[in-house]
Amino acid sequence: MTTSAITKVSEQLCFGGKQIRYKHQSAVLHCDMQFSVFLPPQAETARVPALYWLSGLTCTDENFSSKAGAQQFAAKLGIALIIPDTSPRGDDVPDDENAAYDFGLGAGFYVNATQAPFNKHYKMYDYIVSELPELVEAALPLTDKRAISGHSMGGHGALVIGLRNPERYCSISAFSPICNPANSPWGIKAFNGYLGEDRSQWQQYDASLLLRDAKKVAPILVDQGSADNFYPEQLRTASLVEAASLNDVNAEIRLQPGYDHSYYFIASFIGEHLHFHAQYLK
Amino acid sequence: MTTSAITKVSEQLCFGGKQIRYKHQSAVLHCDMQFSVFLPPQAETARVPALYWLSGLTCTDENFSSKAGAQQFAAKLGIALIIPDTSPRGDDVPDDENAAYDFGLGAGFYVNATQAPFNKHYKMYDYIVSELPELVEAALPLTDKRAISGHSMGGHGALVIGLRNPERYCSISAFSPICNPANSPWGIKAFNGYLGEDRSQWQQYDASLLLRDAKKVAPILVDQGSADNFYPEQLRTASLVEAASLNDVNAEIRLQPGYDHSYYFIASFIGEHLHFHAQYLK
Repeated sequence: MTTSAITKVSEQLCFGGKQIRYKHQSAVLHCDMQFSVFLPPQAETARVPALYWLSGLTCTDENFSSKAGAQQFAAKLGIALIIPDTSPRGDDVPDDENAAYDFGLGAGFYVNATQAPFNKHYKMYDYIVSELPELVEAALPLTDKRAISGHSMGGHGALVIGLRNPERYCSISAFSPICNPANSPWGIKAFNGYLGEDRSQWQQYDASLLLRDAKKVAPILVDQGSADNFYPEQLRTASLVEAASLNDVNAEIRLQPGYDHSYYFIASFIGEHLHFHAQYLK
Repeated sequence: MTTSAITKVSEQLCFGGKQIRYKHQSAVLHCDMQFSVFLPPQAETARVPALYWLSGLTCTDENFSSKAGAQQFAAKLGIALIIPDTSPRGDDVPDDENAAYDFGLGAGFYVNATQAPFNKHYKMYDYIVSELPELVEAALPLTDKRAISGHSMGGHGALVIGLRNPERYCSISAFSPICNPANSPWGIKAFNGYLGEDRSQWQQYDASLLLRDAKKVAPILVDQGSADNFYPEQLRTASLVEAASLNDVNAEIRLQPGYDHSYYFIASFIGEHLHFHAQYLK
């Protein structure tokens, strides 16, 4: 795989570390991409482990960077944050035919699309698992220790990618994840569009189905707000709870009373998630 | 003064407290306004003191609410956050003739305008000092203890309002404030437009000129980033330092190496500002 270098777009000091935006040409996605990185102060003198954060529908790398308040904890704990975009981008990239928020641009669902016209660009699974880590680990002071987290569609992505690659991620967490997309309206629309009607192809991207049969599972922490507009229909947290129970894995799935689907919820608990991952990234 | 009641637009749980948006008809501004409030968990059972936050050019109440990460500290310290908009709003409110970002809508500069066509609506000084506190203290579980802070144009507003009303605000802080608007390009444009060419009318809205002669001054904390694009020309921090020195007041004015004008800077130090105010709000 040929990957071009990453180019710095902006850099801002934050909690003594560096909040940086990069752009690059993605060989996997066949388009120009941007992503954000937070390098903690410790990265000035040593290599640090990384937490990958996958964002939700409509987001770019900027939502988590500006709203979650994660940098203060990453700075204390010496963890880099790697914050990719949520889909391929650019005029050449096909969108939903009605420019809907839940498919196409801003809604890549972290799958490798097999269906035209999406199968050229929509390879977010490979981008997150392979191309982006290879790029940032070559260019930045990172160890090869990785954890993964995300929100909503990105919580789905974090669970799926973490479960399918236990040798690459030492811990997994999620806020308000789409736990069983094969049976949720968002997931059914996305999987039909990207993967086609054959539901046997969907299983590899469904956290609840994966968790049921997973052999080696990294520690998992999930937070779900009880006042979330998308809970339970779209998110189907109960399916993940059931799978965790059947497989007897190390998964803490918490229902947080009164919290909604927003970044106010994420901000309230991101410190606990960073501390959770820090145990395993050491 | 007749003021209508405030109406809740939205409410979200955040760090165990409530992030709320209200709307109301402003008698002072002659338009409908929105503002945000964070009520810490302590407000469930007791009245709490309030920190007013004044935002900068182009902002609404949402920037500080979503990006500063202040709620976690307010929740710990038992302080309410009152977060107003930065200008009158609505189709009837005159804007800059070229819709510039630094005058008119989103740029009220916390003055009482005297010049047509701005003198009907642009009374942000009275709105912040009188109408808004009266409304929120009648409707919410607040004590009459108040502190004030802000960013850039809002840092100017916090300093000016705090200095002119020492009996109403027990402490003052600011990030990247416009310290001497009578001599900065932003301030000269705004004051000419809102107050007219008579510079004697400008002095009451210039923190450096006010601080030089102030009799009773609340404790002041100011943070200014050294990598701020608007420093020193627009912000003129040295004028505030000089005035504080001449008047021998309790003002700590800190230059933070490498930080810029953004909310990444505010987030990095908002905890210290909340702790500073908490000493005096007790």
